[in-house]
Amino acid sequence: MPVGTAASVKSVPQHLLEELGVQILLGNTYHLYLRPGVETVRRFGGLHGFMAWPRAILTDSGGFQVFSLNDLRKVTEEGVTFRSHLDGSSHFFSPESAVAAQIALGADIIMALDECTEYPADRRRTQASMELTLRWAERSKKYFDEHKHEVPWQQYPVPSTEYPVNAAAVQAGAITHNSGYWVLGTGYSQSLFGIIQGGMDLALRKESAERTIEIEFPGYAIGGLSVGEPRPRTREIVEATLEHLPKDRPRYLMGVGTPEEIVEYAGLGIDMMDCVLPTRAARHGLLFTSEGKISIKQARYAQDAEPLDPNCGCLVCRRYSRAYLRHLYAANEVLAQVLNTLHNLSFYLDTMRRVRHSIQLGEESRFLSSVWSRPKP
Amino acid sequence: MPVGTAASVKSVPQHLLEELGVQILLGNTYHLYLRPGVETVRRFGGLHGFMAWPRAILTDSGGFQVFSLNDLRKVTEEGVTFRSHLDGSSHFFSPESAVAAQIALGADIIMALDECTEYPADRRRTQASMELTLRWAERSKKYFDEHKHEVPWQQYPVPSTEYPVNAAAVQAGAITHNSGYWVLGTGYSQSLFGIIQGGMDLALRKESAERTIEIEFPGYAIGGLSVGEPRPRTREIVEATLEHLPKDRPRYLMGVGTPEEIVEYAGLGIDMMDCVLPTRAARHGLLFTSEGKISIKQARYAQDAEPLDPNCGCLVCRRYSRAYLRHLYAANEVLAQVLNTLHNLSFYLDTMRRVRHSIQLGEESRFLSSVWSRPKP
Repeated sequence: MPVGTAASVKSVPQHLLEELGVQILLGNTYHLYLRPGVETVRRFGGLHGFMAWPRAILTDSGGFQVFSLNDLRKVTEEGVTFRSHLDGSSHFFSPESAVAAQIALGADIIMALDECTEYPADRRRTQASMELTLRWAERSKKYFDEHKHEVPWQQYPVPSTEYPVNAAAVQAGAITHNSGYWVLGTGYSQSLFGIIQGGMDLALRKESAERTIEIEFPGYAIGGLSVGEPRPRTREIVEATLEHLPKDRPRYLMGVGTPEEIVEYAGLGIDMMDCVLPTRAARHGLLFTSEGKISIKQARYAQDAEPLDPNCGCLVCRRYSRAYLRHLYAANEVLAQVLNTLHNLSFYLDTMRRVRHSIQLGEESRFLSSVWSRPKP
Repeated sequence: MPVGTAASVKSVPQHLLEELGVQILLGNTYHLYLRPGVETVRRFGGLHGFMAWPRAILTDSGGFQVFSLNDLRKVTEEGVTFRSHLDGSSHFFSPESAVAAQIALGADIIMALDECTEYPADRRRTQASMELTLRWAERSKKYFDEHKHEVPWQQYPVPSTEYPVNAAAVQAGAITHNSGYWVLGTGYSQSLFGIIQGGMDLALRKESAERTIEIEFPGYAIGGLSVGEPRPRTREIVEATLEHLPKDRPRYLMGVGTPEEIVEYAGLGIDMMDCVLPTRAARHGLLFTSEGKISIKQARYAQDAEPLDPNCGCLVCRRYSRAYLRHLYAANEVLAQVLNTLHNLSFYLDTMRRVRHSIQLGEESRFLSSVWSRPKP
């Protein structure tokens, strides 16, 4: 899932995201809550209507970003008080209000409020934090069940390019085609996912998984990783946690990762991932290619007539040279960000397409061992 | 002509410029000379190849921008010495070297080096400046005639979306379609335009026009306007100068203008104009619509579900609300610049399409009096 923090995947128009084949993108509740505010988004039919995005959206609970604010937040049993990074104003998220905000934002998948345990943390602290997340998960679920009918989708028209959004939903009558617009309607609902915590402790991860599953969610996320721990440890936790998650529900690994990592975790059984890496790296001129990473700002590319990635069919690689992309970056042209982001997203989406294709062919292991074995320059 | 200063119409990918119907864009020799340098651009087949733009390009001579540097330049009979705004390094443009740079850049239309007379200037100063421009025009023409075969187009492939670039050129064999690429070839050449100066003096404008025409160029530009004079004076000079320009050669008014002005000047007989206004205003949230100008940053648009311009069919107006555009601007999202620029360019191009259509119908006067008479909000 590309990240569209403030209702925009930075620099890329929605119709190009559709053309890239983006099926789902992520919005950040914390940012949207502060600006433009959930009431504004609700009034436009939720994020789908507000940002004119006809395909799926997931919002995080705001928890991870609030917990990243460190000095600006205070956690109690009731919820978390935090200060806006924009103007210092004081705000409060409870499990109930975080779900309420996400119902108003109207994403297809929303997340229970959790506490992202810091790293490192001792067992006592990790367990207490996990228990808090479990109590918050129950409160989130209860609030969601009582209020999920308030989702602001009723007959709100969402524009798209001529592309069918979700054939299954159309057949089921949940989305109807209405003179060029897709209309989200009734009979289609949000899904609230639970989040597994438990820090770096395998026993607590198991307990967190089992007790979150007892609450019962339509999908489960693995949170609290990529917080500073060594990468082999991340993989170990993911692998151990996955053992305890039902295979018939989506398994979502939050905040991951590099192209190599998304292939690796998909191989372990992860179904969904999100990461700012492709878009953020693009803004810094760091580009992912089938031949390895390229830092396009380097002078060595100033006269390079080759496409960015000779094995990539994206609109950037089909049309432009490395020399032109290097020039745009060196000249501080905004088009550098636009084109770099388009390519990196295309590369990530292609990677996931190949993963899916390989899974369909039942060749996971062969694919996974071959896809990253090309020689690097 | 949209302005693509440093080989990019700021923030807009080339395939979207093609989709907007841009037929020709402008590059700035001064900027391209400094970065990435004319030799780099030449090596890629000129600007067409370097920026992957299959349609027409015009480059200015660099003169106007050099003369805008004020303290950083020194004019002699031989040419103009100037300092780079990037690093303070010293450079020199003569009529010959400015044409040489533009041959290397390979635009379809290139401009003779002129001195843009400052405003205000007395008659003696205006005449001396005009005489210098005339001598430089002769030198530019002579150099061009001796070197025009050096244009770096020979069989250089230029990518485009599936759109035919220039049917006439294809029929004439100058551009051939080659497996998805357009190839600029021989039999197709650059055109060097002369520039009329003469300040605010009608007699000197007449003399400048007559003596520039004697040198003989395939097209003529009116320079030295929009330099601080009142707008009625601009119109007066344009009207008076046009009388002395041949109707069978393109007449190009440099650096103009607002949507109202381009309609007005087209009505007077101007064939070509360029201006940074649509793209620069877009970056500041100033949008042109059929109902007048909109400053999208205003809070009044925060809840406005209407399209930017209800009479516009561009991809921005078809898809997004004013509230979303206002949010993007307020949140400092780069997409604000992308979408605002797309709309403003679309509005300008639509305006010119309506001007052309009206000319074809022979209804100039009726059109010109009606097109800007809609009520403003």
